[in-house]
Amino acid sequence: MVFKKITLVGQSSESFEGAVDDAVERAEATLDNLMWVSVQNEAVELDQAEREYQAEVEVAFELEEGVGE
Amino acid sequence: MVFKKITLVGQSSESFEGAVDDAVERAEATLDNLMWVSVQNEAVELDQAEREYQAEVEVAFELEEGVGE
Amino acid sequence: MVFKKITLVGQSSESFEGAVDDAVERAEATLDNLMWVSVQNEAVELDQAEREYQAEVEVAFELEEGVGE
Amino acid sequence: MVFKKITLVGQSSESFEGAVDDAVERAEATLDNLMWVSVQNEAVELDQAEREYQAEVEVAFELEEGVGE
Amino acid sequence: MVFKKITLVGQSSESFEGAVDDAVERAEATLDNLMWVSVQNEAVELDQAEREYQAEVEVAFELEEGVGE
Amino acid sequence: MVFKKITLVGQSSESFEGAVDDAVERAEATLDNLMWVSVQNEAVELDQAEREYQAEVEVAFELEEGVGE
Amino acid sequence: MVFKKITLVGQSSESFEGAVDDAVERAEATLDNLMWVSVQNEAVELDQAEREYQAEVEVAFELEEGVGE
Amino acid sequence: MVFKKITLVGQSSESFEGAVDDAVERAEATLDNLMWVSVQNEAVELDQAEREYQAEVEVAFELEEGVGE
Amino acid sequence: MVFKKITLVGQSSESFEGAVDDAVERAEATLDNLMWVSVQNEAVELDQAEREYQAEVEVAFELEEGVGE
Amino acid sequence: MVFKKITLVGQSSESFEGAVDDAVERAEATLDNLMWVSVQNEAVELDQAEREYQAEVEVAFELEEGVGE
Amino acid sequence: MVFKKITLVGQSSESFEGAVDDAVERAEATLDNLMWVSVQNEAVELDQAEREYQAEVEVAFELEEGVGE
Amino acid sequence: MVFKKITLVGQSSESFEGAVDDAVERAEATLDNLMWVSVQNEAVELDQAEREYQAEVEVAFELEEGVGE
Repeated sequence: MVFKKITLVGQSSESFEGAVDDAVERAEATLDNLMWVSVQNEAVELDQAEREYQAEVEVAFELEEGVGE
Repeated sequence: MVFKKITLVGQSSESFEGAVDDAVERAEATLDNLMWVSVQNEAVELDQAEREYQAEVEVAFELEEGVGE
Repeated sequence: MVFKKITLVGQSSESFEGAVDDAVERAEATLDNLMWVSVQNEAVELDQAEREYQAEVEVAFELEEGVGE
Repeated sequence: MVFKKITLVGQSSESFEGAVDDAVERAEATLDNLMWVSVQNEAVELDQAEREYQAEVEVAFELEEGVGE
Repeated sequence: MVFKKITLVGQSSESFEGAVDDAVERAEATLDNLMWVSVQNEAVELDQAEREYQAEVEVAFELEEGVGE
Repeated sequence: MVFKKITLVGQSSESFEGAVDDAVERAEATLDNLMWVSVQNEAVELDQAEREYQAEVEVAFELEEGVGE
Repeated sequence: MVFKKITLVGQSSESFEGAVDDAVERAEATLDNLMWVSVQNEAVELDQAEREYQAEVEVAFELEEGVGE
Repeated sequence: MVFKKITLVGQSSESFEGAVDDAVERAEATLDNLMWVSVQNEAVELDQAEREYQAEVEVAFELEEGVGE
Repeated sequence: MVFKKITLVGQSSESFEGAVDDAVERAEATLDNLMWVSVQNEAVELDQAEREYQAEVEVAFELEEGVGE
Repeated sequence: MVFKKITLVGQSSESFEGAVDDAVERAEATLDNLMWVSVQNEAVELDQAEREYQAEVEVAFELEEGVGE
Repeated sequence: MVFKKITLVGQSSESFEGAVDDAVERAEATLDNLMWVSVQNEAVELDQAEREYQAEVEVAFELEEGVGE
Repeated sequence: MVFKKITLVGQSSESFEGAVDDAVERAEATLDNLMWVSVQNEAVELDQAEREYQAEVEVAFELEEGVGE
């Protein structure tokens, strides 16, 4: 059993928890065998009255065949 | 006055805030003189539909006698 | 266009999200042209029954003139 | 010539050397032009009498076309 | 909107700026919606009279569907 | 469920694998519910003809009651 | 003699060297007694055909009075 | 022979050297077989005219039995 | 309550303790509500027979109004 | 008594343990008073069917006279 | 085959590329079998109208005999 | 002008300041053109009633000819 780790950045206009969930849901929708997600960085982009919460996460999943390219 | 620092990993099925609170409450229940808690890492274990939020925290408390072993 | 980055520590008796918002609001009230905010550390000061959530953030804003001193 | 780097986690019930080899062999089986592998972390999952050695490695290979997605 | 980050190593026989451009151009040729590139490491391979400048960069782009594998 | 992490340094006159096993066995002999072990540093003490391999590891185990002191 | 260090982010549409110079010139124009500048990060913002090179630098200067606020 | 490492924070109203000694003396008073102490961080708490020097140190000692909890 | 953190470099021809005190005294002379000071780096500039001890410190103080610029 | 530390990279076609031993043996053959060796990085160069294991180590030895140049 | 790594700081009044080349040329003039050079830090010393670009690099070369002292 | 940096570990039975001075004096006795010294780590070896303070420092000096080996 070999895992691969990839890095995603999720966004939410509400909170960091929302931004993490955003990235996790995207990963769950297209990858099987997700194992764990680790938070690397959290930031807020500010544009006038708007706030965009961002969370960079590392996602690990079991490789079924190949290691992608 | 000397402090000791220990590392705990709290869990929650809800959120990272819940996982931190989990570790803090465990520490409060058994240690006197807690001073501060610092978040080191946040991760999510994924098991099919389940998510287990984890927060690794460093807990500092005042030593009353000895430094434990 | 040149940005300057400064470091603030926000507080909240409720949550880390509240502590980040605390620092961001303080920055928004006195600085124009805020660009982004990056979370550096999260900690909880414990004082008996009280918890004080703290979030250290780095705030970037566009310099209009000078770089301050 | 441009290289791409990806992160894999190999496993072995025997040793860390075995876990590194596990990840390298998986990469060799599906990627051409492997250049080098760098060890990032080593850990052991413990489950009663069982030990599962894990090695996280960064694998670099020459890109032939595109950068994958 | 979710971003993915990948790591590339560009090369140039001229300079580090050339090696960064090399990686950015490769990414631009095959990925839509590139957002930003961050320099991680710079090194020179020396082989007698030859110098090969290398720049490791992290490339972020918006995911249109899936997260690749 | 809350975990506690502690740091041990194992030794072996043979190899780093032996030094890790040394620390893991000591932990297994006195702690229930070990979860995982992560390698932090590896070093060799040299004393004339002798070599003493050392491995610093972080050991995580489930807390049954209290967080120790 | 006491120094203060501040963090600036310079920009250039040409190169990283240009982005560093941009931040240094801004600092020179408004601060006396600049001592040294240290490069912290380099990145490129990509917007279609446009590239915006950015360099984050730490600027140290001698304090004449006060430490600013 | 297996070592355990713990983290203490010593204090002194005089100096950092005093704060390190404070933590070392506390450790010496209650642990046998101390091996070495490594300084991790130094800070000063300021309260009006008062200064409280703090030194965080990592203390390593030989385990005689068990690994504590 | 929001804190701001700034970075100062103190000097002394005697010792590192003197260099830290130098920076702390400068901060105390011009800022109200100092909270804590954390040592980041220590170095010695050597010029023939002369030694100039330097200590880089991070100073945190409570913001009364604005966040400065 | 003053120590000097130098950095070596050992190689082996067999294993990381072999690559560490390679560097240690080279150091032992030409330096007296070796004290300890600390592993910094481990990597594998891949060239078709060949694997070259590399270990970067820091070697500390007691200085007898001078500090070399 | 064993490599040794040393650290040099090159200077240039023109650019960082010039400062790296300065260190590489010095190394090439006195060491055989240079393998690679890795950039560690870049800084600018400012002295009135003058700028002195500095680049700290790590140079690796094959050891022919001994490891120097 | 090119600098070389080397790493020394000084010792003192009195204090960390003494251990730094120990390494600086050794360097001054055998190297010309010392430029600066930066403290990397501080530790205490404990042997019963004895304490041996150690300071690891990085020493930079101007190269007159060659880069040593």
